[in-house]
Amino acid sequence: MHTLVLVRHGQSEWNLENRFTGWTDVGLTPQGEAEAASAAELLLAGGYDFDACLTSVLKRAIKTLDIVLEGMDRMWLPVAKSWRLNERHYGALQGLNKAEMTEKFGEAQVFSWRRSYDVPPPALTPDDPRHPGRDRRYAGLTEAELPLTECLKDTVARVMPYWEGEVAPRIRAGQRLLIAAHGNSIRAMVKYLDGISDADIAGLNIPTGVPLVYELDTELRPVRHFYLGDPEAIARSIQAVADQAKAKK
Amino acid sequence: MHTLVLVRHGQSEWNLENRFTGWTDVGLTPQGEAEAASAAELLLAGGYDFDACLTSVLKRAIKTLDIVLEGMDRMWLPVAKSWRLNERHYGALQGLNKAEMTEKFGEAQVFSWRRSYDVPPPALTPDDPRHPGRDRRYAGLTEAELPLTECLKDTVARVMPYWEGEVAPRIRAGQRLLIAAHGNSIRAMVKYLDGISDADIAGLNIPTGVPLVYELDTELRPVRHFYLGDPEAIARSIQAVADQAKAKK
Repeated sequence: MHTLVLVRHGQSEWNLENRFTGWTDVGLTPQGEAEAASAAELLLAGGYDFDACLTSVLKRAIKTLDIVLEGMDRMWLPVAKSWRLNERHYGALQGLNKAEMTEKFGEAQVFSWRRSYDVPPPALTPDDPRHPGRDRRYAGLTEAELPLTECLKDTVARVMPYWEGEVAPRIRAGQRLLIAAHGNSIRAMVKYLDGISDADIAGLNIPTGVPLVYELDTELRPVRHFYLGDPEAIARSIQAVADQAKAKK
Repeated sequence: MHTLVLVRHGQSEWNLENRFTGWTDVGLTPQGEAEAASAAELLLAGGYDFDACLTSVLKRAIKTLDIVLEGMDRMWLPVAKSWRLNERHYGALQGLNKAEMTEKFGEAQVFSWRRSYDVPPPALTPDDPRHPGRDRRYAGLTEAELPLTECLKDTVARVMPYWEGEVAPRIRAGQRLLIAAHGNSIRAMVKYLDGISDADIAGLNIPTGVPLVYELDTELRPVRHFYLGDPEAIARSIQAVADQAKAKK
């Protein structure tokens, strides 16, 4: 039996402003930091411990992990960072306010961009200052790997090689992993683990800063999964994520 | 030409209490955190940047590195942690107050334990709760590697394999490294780089939270080295470290 814990970063500055973030490297809000500290307390209270940690190359996930490790007195654990755990790349929508987009394009179009499985938002052009090829942290990526936009299907396609090449071998080797990542990179793993259909994954919302525990059998098939913490608070957090695409009143 | 930056962690809780710390895993004080933030500003102002970071498995060094990386907006850089960069193990003196020790054993004996090259402090016994074999983070070490006490010569002996196996190959491969470590693990590297004698290394004090820049030639021989920041503040910081072994008045 293996245990894997996934945690979505706490509230970020752009979650708060309700803007499409994607690969934009924004920090946590004070509330986001508090959510991370609370995740540490839940993990401690539940008796969880880890051998290694994985995260993205975006600071809101890294900071969440740092806070969790500090809270658990496990700062010494090895941490590996990969772009493959980054949030979905939102293309030319990155930086735009979700409510404003909804007013402009309509809720159906925005919902489609946010939650359809295979409709990507408008792509970045190569000369766009937001192009990830301009960022040194992605210097090792091939042209084919550098996203200009992603639908969730694209995100799944770049998360899965990391699952197969890095996550699964570590779990099989007996490592108890903590993965601090993003709504859509976590959704990609959850889709795979629980066999969720392309149609149904759109309706699955991952709350911020709440540890999601998977118990896996020796074949890495999930036996069960559950969130740590107060069920009502978790339900409110999931609803808040689901409400983000709605236009401001 | 290569650039290597070493930084000793900021003031720790036990630096403040003037206690022998060694491998005891104590956190930074608020002043220590401020020193780390100041190190980030100095590195930014000097135009320094890095490709990878190395640190110990002790939280005061890791937290210093985290604060520097956050201040430089480089949280995404890869970080490798190794026990070989830990502070010198102070054996049975760990946890004792330096000034009290001086009153009890005399300044000469304490100075000898702190600064002689090859006289180790009294060793921990196997049943001591401070024995590092009881700590999961050292589970991968052999019996021979687990220190019960260390003189500086012993610290040099376990830092050098890390220099040869990890640090030097990375520098030769072109990586600009930032190493956040401890007074004695940094002293070990400085002794090697600058060819300082066993007798003279005792008098070398490394200030906390001040970036120490080495410019190395293609053979990794130092061309020059210097601290970043205000020379008078650095001199005061070095004197404060040198004063720690003196008895309280």
